[in-house]
Amino acid sequence: MIDYKKESLKLHLKSKGKIEVVSKVPLNNKDDLSLAYTPGVAEPCVHIAKDSEDAYKYTSKGNMVAVVSDGSAVLGLGNIGALASLPVMEGKALLFKEFANVDAFPIVLDTQNPDEIIEIVKAISPTFGGINLEDIEAPKCVYIERRLKEELNIPVFHDDQHGTAIVLAAALINATRLTKRRIEDLEVVLAGTGAAGNSIARMLKKLGVKHVFAFNKSGVLSHDKYNEYNFLDQELLDLNIISEPSNTEKTSLEKLIVKKDVFIGVSAKGILSKEMVRTMHKDPFIFAMANPDPEITYEDAVDAGAFIIGTGRSDYPNQINNVLAFPGIFRGALDSRAKNITEEMKLSAAKAIAHIITDDELSRDYIIPSAFNKEVVKRVSREIINHVKGVK
Amino acid sequence: MIDYKKESLKLHLKSKGKIEVVSKVPLNNKDDLSLAYTPGVAEPCVHIAKDSEDAYKYTSKGNMVAVVSDGSAVLGLGNIGALASLPVMEGKALLFKEFANVDAFPIVLDTQNPDEIIEIVKAISPTFGGINLEDIEAPKCVYIERRLKEELNIPVFHDDQHGTAIVLAAALINATRLTKRRIEDLEVVLAGTGAAGNSIARMLKKLGVKHVFAFNKSGVLSHDKYNEYNFLDQELLDLNIISEPSNTEKTSLEKLIVKKDVFIGVSAKGILSKEMVRTMHKDPFIFAMANPDPEITYEDAVDAGAFIIGTGRSDYPNQINNVLAFPGIFRGALDSRAKNITEEMKLSAAKAIAHIITDDELSRDYIIPSAFNKEVVKRVSREIINHVKGVK
Repeated sequence: MIDYKKESLKLHLKSKGKIEVVSKVPLNNKDDLSLAYTPGVAEPCVHIAKDSEDAYKYTSKGNMVAVVSDGSAVLGLGNIGALASLPVMEGKALLFKEFANVDAFPIVLDTQNPDEIIEIVKAISPTFGGINLEDIEAPKCVYIERRLKEELNIPVFHDDQHGTAIVLAAALINATRLTKRRIEDLEVVLAGTGAAGNSIARMLKKLGVKHVFAFNKSGVLSHDKYNEYNFLDQELLDLNIISEPSNTEKTSLEKLIVKKDVFIGVSAKGILSKEMVRTMHKDPFIFAMANPDPEITYEDAVDAGAFIIGTGRSDYPNQINNVLAFPGIFRGALDSRAKNITEEMKLSAAKAIAHIITDDELSRDYIIPSAFNKEVVKRVSREIINHVKGVK
Repeated sequence: MIDYKKESLKLHLKSKGKIEVVSKVPLNNKDDLSLAYTPGVAEPCVHIAKDSEDAYKYTSKGNMVAVVSDGSAVLGLGNIGALASLPVMEGKALLFKEFANVDAFPIVLDTQNPDEIIEIVKAISPTFGGINLEDIEAPKCVYIERRLKEELNIPVFHDDQHGTAIVLAAALINATRLTKRRIEDLEVVLAGTGAAGNSIARMLKKLGVKHVFAFNKSGVLSHDKYNEYNFLDQELLDLNIISEPSNTEKTSLEKLIVKKDVFIGVSAKGILSKEMVRTMHKDPFIFAMANPDPEITYEDAVDAGAFIIGTGRSDYPNQINNVLAFPGIFRGALDSRAKNITEEMKLSAAKAIAHIITDDELSRDYIIPSAFNKEVVKRVSREIINHVKGVK
């Protein structure tokens, strides 16, 4: 077993970070310089000044994504600030390049004020063909994403919300395929109603799920307490898929989970016990995605009789890994000049990811394709492009 | 002769812009991912959160420069806006990489408000080890640079001001070396008192020049009109190197230039005639740096008896080319973690550039080394490093 901490530190130190900015054109002599820089460079400038669309022809804008964070909710580390989040954002940029040949550049912001973040991202947007928001705390991340979607004419995508939701949806689709259960019949407990939980709930609704019981730090989500909630939880209730037990006040997770079919956790380490899993319906699906330590360990979930187990970890089967979604989403959005990533696109992406695995290949430990499967980006991007073209 | 316009457009179209963002670390399998991204990446984050200095060890910050523009004064094209300036800023990024192995990334801003620009650059600064301001109009560019120098702890450099000044200073040093004239004795006409003119005047003072006659669109710069000027012209007068003729009101450039030794133009096409050059002292130095068309053509200056002629053009001898300065300046500043690029550093850089040419090599047509001479970056960066180390 690799000592990730030690080896990662060594790797980062050796290379002094992970990204570099290189040339796509030759620069060997005076003539090369005269074309890439003055005097030749004036010509593409003049064209773009006349028609802003030409920026997509003559600059790197059309393939360039900003990975934007304020460092307020980084991995499991919390609010470590902009500078300390930079290794994550550089890593994200690498994933963009490696998996989808999208150029991506980390922009970490020395402010955590949502309106300032919005103004800054708008101001720097001319360089970019898309904006990937990352590791910004809820609920402000949702507010920031929505305003940017409205006010920019390039796609904006908050990966922590939608990336997880898309891949979880793919996993759920394949869990039902494998077990021949109807998605509409599943009773789901959703633990965690932050940014990811909210986006997951929207995907569940799109998938046809009828019964979602939501649970967070304050207990069971309940219509009675609507006015006490932040806008995210209120919107979750407004989706009209939230069921609740008769006495929400007295219902712990332990009581809530009895006889449910699915547990979806985007919450905190260790909140789900083996005993709780044993009270669920037979052969439950457990998606324990708290990072880096899940709501229940893989081993405990197996031991307690879970039929399907997915986590956020790469060292266990069925990793619910964002990298299956965002590279293809952006590849498709950039190639088709999508102005927005819509709910329909996300659902199509989830289905595309799910159906990369054939009926014959599907198994308890293989409901999610590998991050290194080259079909993933191809198929996901094709779905996005088809939506933009109006094929879907 | 290459058709620069046509060929440049073709080049930009073919490659869809000029920069890409690539990985410095291997990404071939799950283990690579686990080190460059989760879970391993948490470790450098934790270190940086504890000690911000560690960002220079574990991220690309220490070798990354932002090339920032609002597109308000681009080449000879004027205020074409952020998006249309992007090809220039991408080109600049290439020069940084090619000449000094500095990673640079274009940030073009959809605002031309100086205070907003300052706030945005401050907010995005955690990603960067240095800020290169570019093609921002005067006098606001000077205000922006000064405030950023005060408020950021990374080096900030406005190339249009200082790059030209440094290389011009090198050219002037070598013109006097070649002709065995004393720099203190030269009477200089400076045409153009914007951002570059202002920085040039500071360098002239540092070089020991005693008599500078300044001329701009409004005529001869005069102490009598101090209160009518913007802060840049006022500061120029405050330098105490500005001489003026007895009757400034009635003095045209034609009258001003009579019996002067040097013409330095950062102004406009064609304002200097052959007749004017003929009225200067014998064997004058003409630095006609208006871009792309100089104050007087090389041919006309030769014809009128100029002894040394420098322009901004690559197709004539003695190109006063910023690329001789900024790559080495930033290479040295990044390597030595300079907090500021000081006036002393700029002067040392100018001298270093000048003395790359030996006494034996010096000639009328070779007072400036080639942009492709690899010694330039080495020597300039060494000067900066020596200043920071306190050797100078």
